[in-house]
Amino acid sequence: MESSDFIPNLAYDSVIFGFSGDQLKILLMEYHNTGLFALPGGFVKKTENLDDAVRRGLAERTGLTHIYLEQFHTFGNLSRHKPEVMKTILIANGHDPNGPMRWLLDRFISVAYYALIDYRYVIPRPDELSDSCTWYHVDQLPELILDHREIVNKALENLRENLDRKLVGMNLLPEKFTMQELQRVYEAISGTSFRRTSFQRKMLAMEVLIRHEKKYSGKAHKAPYLYSFTRK
Amino acid sequence: MESSDFIPNLAYDSVIFGFSGDQLKILLMEYHNTGLFALPGGFVKKTENLDDAVRRGLAERTGLTHIYLEQFHTFGNLSRHKPEVMKTILIANGHDPNGPMRWLLDRFISVAYYALIDYRYVIPRPDELSDSCTWYHVDQLPELILDHREIVNKALENLRENLDRKLVGMNLLPEKFTMQELQRVYEAISGTSFRRTSFQRKMLAMEVLIRHEKKYSGKAHKAPYLYSFTRK
Repeated sequence: MESSDFIPNLAYDSVIFGFSGDQLKILLMEYHNTGLFALPGGFVKKTENLDDAVRRGLAERTGLTHIYLEQFHTFGNLSRHKPEVMKTILIANGHDPNGPMRWLLDRFISVAYYALIDYRYVIPRPDELSDSCTWYHVDQLPELILDHREIVNKALENLRENLDRKLVGMNLLPEKFTMQELQRVYEAISGTSFRRTSFQRKMLAMEVLIRHEKKYSGKAHKAPYLYSFTRK
Repeated sequence: MESSDFIPNLAYDSVIFGFSGDQLKILLMEYHNTGLFALPGGFVKKTENLDDAVRRGLAERTGLTHIYLEQFHTFGNLSRHKPEVMKTILIANGHDPNGPMRWLLDRFISVAYYALIDYRYVIPRPDELSDSCTWYHVDQLPELILDHREIVNKALENLRENLDRKLVGMNLLPEKFTMQELQRVYEAISGTSFRRTSFQRKMLAMEVLIRHEKKYSGKAHKAPYLYSFTRK
């Protein structure tokens, strides 16, 4: 990473939400030999769009290129600048903190994004400073560096607000799905459970679902209807 | 403005919404001798929080220090970098575009905020490069430089979404207000008109209003109730 390729003092962080049928998880990196956990992030090249930089980073970490991605906040407090943390990480990785990677000790304003993916399709890949890149249940996150916990909280808040407003849940479901599958997405994201009947009534009242033929399961009388969203 | 005081390549832009009883307006700057209009914006000092930089800029333009302010998006496309526009502005102001203000020609990623104020309390003040700083009706804006029109559109979209969700309208009303005053705020922000009875029914159903004594107007039988919001 050559500092001269990147816009100085600007970073991005990504809260990658993964779901696979029931649990909501977040992808975290662990830095070599430090026990320090962080959100996957990166920097913006002088010659690339901000959004493209984030998509590039996500593709590197997850192998996925068509991801639902939403920018939600830019974090710019002075208190997020803790050069001693990055110094520890550089030293643990055998880098001279006064050497060519010294620019990583600068103050960074970070534009935060969240992504929604089905984690069955992902093989997480660590970057050069980290030795793991693993899914953690959203209720069981380890301590995170800098203000990354605040970034996660704000991402969750936005994701929950966007459940109804932007129907973000559709990004975690196949084209056609059962009401039960939809309910599991809502429950995982909102962190609460709903009564089956009232959930179904609420979703149908929103008038965003199309009902299709029943899903054949062998037991005809129990076969659930399939639904899809009216808009993408 | 010394370039060395500021974080390079980072700016902010502010969409300052003003309201005074009926119309929604936006504060725009006109650059000296150019006919170019822009949103008020500025830069972030290396030693200040991002939010504080924006509050500092708003106080300079409006004289107000306690403003409702919401960050809503960060604009980082390469296409927003148009050095020839800033060059025109510098030359029109008698500055050498290769001189000490040359850094203004760089690429900037801009963090955008919107503010909501009652414009009766404001005496807009232009900055050193502009000769006017004036309110424009939201439906009658002049052409704006760079991507500032897109920034305005996104601000309006966010403001409208936040009308019910965050009750942003309360920032444009006195502590106690009539249902008619509240309706005018909603109509100005949403750009549509509502029927008096259905508006009242909707607002009361939200359970966010406290009803107080009637407003004395001399004609007792027509005096409207006063309301306030249950939460700030």
